[in-house]
Amino acid sequence: MKTIYLVCYDIESDKWRKKLSDRLISHGLERIQYSVFAGPLSESLYEALQSWIKMHEDKLLSAGNSIIFLKLLPNQLEKMCILGEVDFDLEMLSGKTNTLIL
Amino acid sequence: MKTIYLVCYDIESDKWRKKLSDRLISHGLERIQYSVFAGPLSESLYEALQSWIKMHEDKLLSAGNSIIFLKLLPNQLEKMCILGEVDFDLEMLSGKTNTLIL
Repeated sequence: MKTIYLVCYDIESDKWRKKLSDRLISHGLERIQYSVFAGPLSESLYEALQSWIKMHEDKLLSAGNSIIFLKLLPNQLEKMCILGEVDFDLEMLSGKTNTLIL
Repeated sequence: MKTIYLVCYDIESDKWRKKLSDRLISHGLERIQYSVFAGPLSESLYEALQSWIKMHEDKLLSAGNSIIFLKLLPNQLEKMCILGEVDFDLEMLSGKTNTLIL
């Protein structure tokens, strides 16, 4: 059972911003904007992510930095109003597809 | 009747990013991260915002830029997981307060 999350961050350190974005993507989230990600996460992956953030909070969450997790319903992503150029797969985001067919 | 929105953007132009952020704030949204805003919008303000974006889409939505509007339920904002330092009023965001008492 997976929950759809929107995750966004303000992280000043290039190195730690990259570490977090790599981790979000490796956990199956898609980048929908430079610092905004979305997609389904199992409870165990969500917990692992929270633990990893906690373990590195001195680097990730220094003054002015923040990371926000927002639980979404799948149809909220389908209904979102997207203006401009984006490069993501809405089916993947809303958890309808979890295998990438090449 | 207002709807709660989360609005986030990737806009390259400093000038037009500032114009949009000023407009979002003047319409009552709160900045929750550098390029992420949230709060209640009436249908007429939402439509006015969309029209303004459309009017300036050549500047706001040039290559690689995007603006996303996501409708939220008030309790989703209340339940969001916020790590780190943020400076916003959750009551305002979720539409429970609309008068700022000074």
